[in-house]
Amino acid sequence: MRLPADATLLVIDLQHAIDAPYWTKDGPRNNPDAEAVAGRLLAAWRAAKRPLIIVRHDSREAQSAFRPGQRGNDFKPEARPLPGETVVAKQTTNAFINTGLEQLLRDAGCTTLVVCGVSTSNSVESTVRMAGDLGFTVHVVEDACFTFPKHDWAGTLRSAEEVHAMALANLSGEFATITTSATVLAAVR
Amino acid sequence: MRLPADATLLVIDLQHAIDAPYWTKDGPRNNPDAEAVAGRLLAAWRAAKRPLIIVRHDSREAQSAFRPGQRGNDFKPEARPLPGETVVAKQTTNAFINTGLEQLLRDAGCTTLVVCGVSTSNSVESTVRMAGDLGFTVHVVEDACFTFPKHDWAGTLRSAEEVHAMALANLSGEFATITTSATVLAAVR
Repeated sequence: MRLPADATLLVIDLQHAIDAPYWTKDGPRNNPDAEAVAGRLLAAWRAAKRPLIIVRHDSREAQSAFRPGQRGNDFKPEARPLPGETVVAKQTTNAFINTGLEQLLRDAGCTTLVVCGVSTSNSVESTVRMAGDLGFTVHVVEDACFTFPKHDWAGTLRSAEEVHAMALANLSGEFATITTSATVLAAVR
Repeated sequence: MRLPADATLLVIDLQHAIDAPYWTKDGPRNNPDAEAVAGRLLAAWRAAKRPLIIVRHDSREAQSAFRPGQRGNDFKPEARPLPGETVVAKQTTNAFINTGLEQLLRDAGCTTLVVCGVSTSNSVESTVRMAGDLGFTVHVVEDACFTFPKHDWAGTLRSAEEVHAMALANLSGEFATITTSATVLAAVR
């Protein structure tokens, strides 16, 4: 893998709210090390002085743990921005809606995104679908993402691993390349 | 179900290209009657003089059966627009990208979309995710959509029914309400 100098790391929604109990009512999440992996990606991007953007979800829903004004809205330690780093606040799953993100990337000459965060099947998938349709080259770091179990529309309970694997399959080829942190870190260092 | 007068029927990508053999290399599609059901929705919308938009996929990919200039790009009979009906041409999965669709809907005072077409997990899902994030109320008519089998990222072959059911589960609640043609037709007639 080769990553151009403009390849921007996009870290999505790694906030304490993602640990709220309601996410795991049907079973555990997958990739328990994803935060640590995302932290290693951030450290590598910082060391290489490559561009990065940290996305924060500011939910407008009364019951959401992501609503501003509570601890859930705060970044997890692994995803905390350093002074001067770019934070994009969003209110929907898709980080391009009403955030100026596309213009920010275009102005910076960005052609390529490396995406990690949560959840694979919700905000990551919505954002990556849009990024691919907008013409960006997108790499999804699958071991730095995770999701949760869900009943499919036919009533079958799918594990977090199954939901994650279906989301990645939908993204692969059509919108993004699926990769791993080992591959990405080797390209950045 | 109550549908406001501005509820716009959005028929997505029902073109001959969706019958190309490469879609079913891993097994059959689901909902073989979906085109007929979509045709009944269109007939009901026309009879009620409600607003409708037919979306056509004009692929830029050399190998795509959806590329303009071949029969695959033509609408299936059930989705053929009548003179004067609005056709929106798109080049990506998401019908909002570079099409003016959002402005068209805002100018018409549209608050609500009723969506059918193909494929559930690709253009329908991308468009519905975006519509929900843009604040539209969205109803997906599940028996007027279909998709194809796919290997998930862990290598498990999922049937078209499974891929369809996972896409609908991802959309349900977060971006849209999942409904059936029987419910929608009862509300329109």
